[in-house]
Amino acid sequence: MLRTTTRHLAALRHVAQPVVMRQASRASVYKSVTLLSRPYATSNNKVVPLTAEKYPGFTRNDQFKKLTEKDVDHFKGIVGESALIYNNEDDLAAFNTDWMNKYRGQSQLVLKPKTTQQVADILKYCNDQRIAVVPQGGNTGLVGGSIPVFDEVVLSLQSMNSIRSFDDVSGILTADAGCILEGLDNWLNEKGYMMPLDLGAKGSCHIGGNLATNAGGLRLLRYGSLHGTVLGLEVVLPDGSILDSMSTLRKDNTGYDLKQLFIGSEGTIGVITGVSILTPRRPKAVNVALLGLNSYDDVQKAFKQSRSELSEILSAFEFWDNNALQIYKKHSDAKPLMESEYPFYVLIETSGSNKDHDDEKLTSYLENMMVDEVAQDGVVAQDETQIKNIWSVREGFTEALGKEAAVYKYDISMPVPKINECLEDMRQHLKDGGVFGQPDSPIIDVVGYGHVGDGNLHLNIAANRIDKRVPELIEPYLFEWVAKQNGSISAEHGLGVAKNQFLSYSKPEGMIKMMKTIKDLLDPNAILNPYKYLPSK
Amino acid sequence: MLRTTTRHLAALRHVAQPVVMRQASRASVYKSVTLLSRPYATSNNKVVPLTAEKYPGFTRNDQFKKLTEKDVDHFKGIVGESALIYNNEDDLAAFNTDWMNKYRGQSQLVLKPKTTQQVADILKYCNDQRIAVVPQGGNTGLVGGSIPVFDEVVLSLQSMNSIRSFDDVSGILTADAGCILEGLDNWLNEKGYMMPLDLGAKGSCHIGGNLATNAGGLRLLRYGSLHGTVLGLEVVLPDGSILDSMSTLRKDNTGYDLKQLFIGSEGTIGVITGVSILTPRRPKAVNVALLGLNSYDDVQKAFKQSRSELSEILSAFEFWDNNALQIYKKHSDAKPLMESEYPFYVLIETSGSNKDHDDEKLTSYLENMMVDEVAQDGVVAQDETQIKNIWSVREGFTEALGKEAAVYKYDISMPVPKINECLEDMRQHLKDGGVFGQPDSPIIDVVGYGHVGDGNLHLNIAANRIDKRVPELIEPYLFEWVAKQNGSISAEHGLGVAKNQFLSYSKPEGMIKMMKTIKDLLDPNAILNPYKYLPSK
Repeated sequence: MLRTTTRHLAALRHVAQPVVMRQASRASVYKSVTLLSRPYATSNNKVVPLTAEKYPGFTRNDQFKKLTEKDVDHFKGIVGESALIYNNEDDLAAFNTDWMNKYRGQSQLVLKPKTTQQVADILKYCNDQRIAVVPQGGNTGLVGGSIPVFDEVVLSLQSMNSIRSFDDVSGILTADAGCILEGLDNWLNEKGYMMPLDLGAKGSCHIGGNLATNAGGLRLLRYGSLHGTVLGLEVVLPDGSILDSMSTLRKDNTGYDLKQLFIGSEGTIGVITGVSILTPRRPKAVNVALLGLNSYDDVQKAFKQSRSELSEILSAFEFWDNNALQIYKKHSDAKPLMESEYPFYVLIETSGSNKDHDDEKLTSYLENMMVDEVAQDGVVAQDETQIKNIWSVREGFTEALGKEAAVYKYDISMPVPKINECLEDMRQHLKDGGVFGQPDSPIIDVVGYGHVGDGNLHLNIAANRIDKRVPELIEPYLFEWVAKQNGSISAEHGLGVAKNQFLSYSKPEGMIKMMKTIKDLLDPNAILNPYKYLPSK
Repeated sequence: MLRTTTRHLAALRHVAQPVVMRQASRASVYKSVTLLSRPYATSNNKVVPLTAEKYPGFTRNDQFKKLTEKDVDHFKGIVGESALIYNNEDDLAAFNTDWMNKYRGQSQLVLKPKTTQQVADILKYCNDQRIAVVPQGGNTGLVGGSIPVFDEVVLSLQSMNSIRSFDDVSGILTADAGCILEGLDNWLNEKGYMMPLDLGAKGSCHIGGNLATNAGGLRLLRYGSLHGTVLGLEVVLPDGSILDSMSTLRKDNTGYDLKQLFIGSEGTIGVITGVSILTPRRPKAVNVALLGLNSYDDVQKAFKQSRSELSEILSAFEFWDNNALQIYKKHSDAKPLMESEYPFYVLIETSGSNKDHDDEKLTSYLENMMVDEVAQDGVVAQDETQIKNIWSVREGFTEALGKEAAVYKYDISMPVPKINECLEDMRQHLKDGGVFGQPDSPIIDVVGYGHVGDGNLHLNIAANRIDKRVPELIEPYLFEWVAKQNGSISAEHGLGVAKNQFLSYSKPEGMIKMMKTIKDLLDPNAILNPYKYLPSK
């Protein structure tokens, strides 16, 4: 049915009426308890089982020294008594457990150095004494990367949280690794700048942790990866030497770009203590629109056209399927944003320096999408509240899924055209396996959402009970499927202890071999973040 | 003097009249003969002296085998007779000499493999036999990095020049390393996309060479560095193994990002044979304006304000000083672009998806610059020809300087506020040294231009004759000055044989040590691009 532009515009205006929804703040969404990947459990465990007991395959490395009082005294001499937590289970708990209550370690010692030199002194001693160390930032990871497995010493960067410098001509910020992302962003806001990354955990995560995990998040589409925006790092190597590449230069072609190795290394070859990063100007205008679409083909058409028409102002292009919406609706009393429902939705955000121009571009794009029948319906947020309302659907899936008895969560990437095929294939596979599609099936649904512009799918499988057949059907089936598309088994969450054994699905043997060589080279005693990241076999 | 907006607008319109200038194409500018850095010579040498004889400190490494007929036969077996140049001085010359006629090697063998496997077979043999190899792309480098020093075998990638794939939803291109940058850009143009980098040598340089040298160029300000836009690489290691990380994913957090090591490694640890790169949409509208300013403070104000007002559409912000303009005028019969002259000039380019919006933003910005008396005058190009005219001044400095008897060229980066101080300090230093400022002085002038938005200064010292005192006064003085500002002695040109011995001015000892460790790890026999990149001592 061909509809006229006038009618579409009316529809757009119509849907722009205020919508009343429960506004879940990002922080609250993030703090909800959920389940991840291969290791599975219910969300109602009061006592989190020890990682080393809950999951098979962990054996404490006997090469690592068990902590003595003498060691603790030595650390006291480095950081001072007040910057150390020792043998106090209550205080240690927050450092031994992740926010999802999924992983639990057995560390008896947390160190909170205040300077790079203290970090260096700690690592030198640990290296000499063969004491294993887990660097920890905001402890907001999703794969258990910052939680000890056995009795590793926790090296928390939370007391290194000062901004070092800011050049407001070039927008280059230098800061300690322990600065909280949102704190930096708020500080930059005063100066008309912003951090080039944004993610749900921003109220707790550290910039150092963001770098160590190569955090992606919601603005990667616009501002690119940290490999491009980070200009310099200060890193303490396992032997205690300080690698100073705190460059504040956009261009410097003098030798191998060593800092890149540490971005995404999850604390396995060095501890990031400082960062120099290029920050963009904060946009003066932000618009958010939501489209309802009939097919994933239309999602792709809408994406491609947005790159052409919205181009330089496009700052997010998120998608979800109707299955995700149903789970959301089940646990939310928010009024629907659209009168009808559609198989797919996309959230489009623009950020620019001129509100009128952005409005005009977005309106023209939305008109074209509806005249071409790519989109069936659309809403445009008219104010800050409506912007939050639309975003809160996208950000509400984690919380809604967390209310089911169990959920198996995957963070995968693949060529954009394959995303919906992946979801459909998994649904069929679980039906074939007899765990989905019948009234008494354990699986409630397979739902998809994510950063479609980055080829990044968050695939979630919700279940009404634990059923052993389910994880066996999912893994390694899904990893094999992703590998066939030359995709990644971990788009942005990293490896940690959750994915390290599956690395070969995303990386060829030669690459893994070279990774191990790099690890051996930089951390010959393997004291940094053991049992994680690279496969143990 | 406060001028009214109306008058400024009139001025802007006035200066937008067609200007007639000699249009030097980028290619012709690029091909002009000039001189670089520490190694100096006149531009009129007919026979280029051998690098090994002209510059001190080179000794052939006796560990390297001298080529035998049997070796040549073996290579014939790999690439075929037609893909090999052997003992033919005329044909070898183009591979043994750089385009500036500054460096000359003594290779007797050029290999032109057609496949990654052929590259692997060549390197495996060379590694086993200890035959030294120089990888070569378009041979457009500025520091002698792609030219042999002694009898190294030249491994030319020019026959590996196919596009492998393009995904027009995500804009991800995969291609052989030997594809010419401009060829890729033209090919993408048909599809509404563009390469995320642009430089003067684009008509000759290879994308593989761009990656190996981490090319910066004119669009880095907008599209960021190759460390961010490159998604995957295919690299042949010195032992002949193929490191396949040809990912076409924007997000993949599975292990160390090893490909980053090869970006900017100048062919010293592996030969890049394939690339996967994210390409942006080609802008529908391009505007270029030129401003005349009274001080470098005003240049900085104009830059800062452009990031705020032009923000997402700003694609270049170049500057030059009046000294550069004088050299340009001396060798050009082009009509001036402005009625009066000013101490500084900035070229501003915008690229966007909507011409009207871009025009409005630019006009508003330019008005503000003139009302605030940041800029004293301005011109806006009204058509493609005028755009070229303004760019041809910026791109004409190299050619103009090349017409002087000698020119000492430096490509340095530093915090943006320091750029003019660097130029002024060098002028004073040369005056103090007695080689500048008197009627009979050898130095004609010290001129500055460059990518001010990236803190990247091209500092050029033009001389009317060779005078031994000059280079001694410049080096290491300039490198020390740059080091004091935590700047880089090579912003985008790399190290090659021209800068490798000066690396310690830009990188601390710990970094250089780690670089050497990486080199030893990946190329234990040191067969790849010897005598270059890292300091020999």
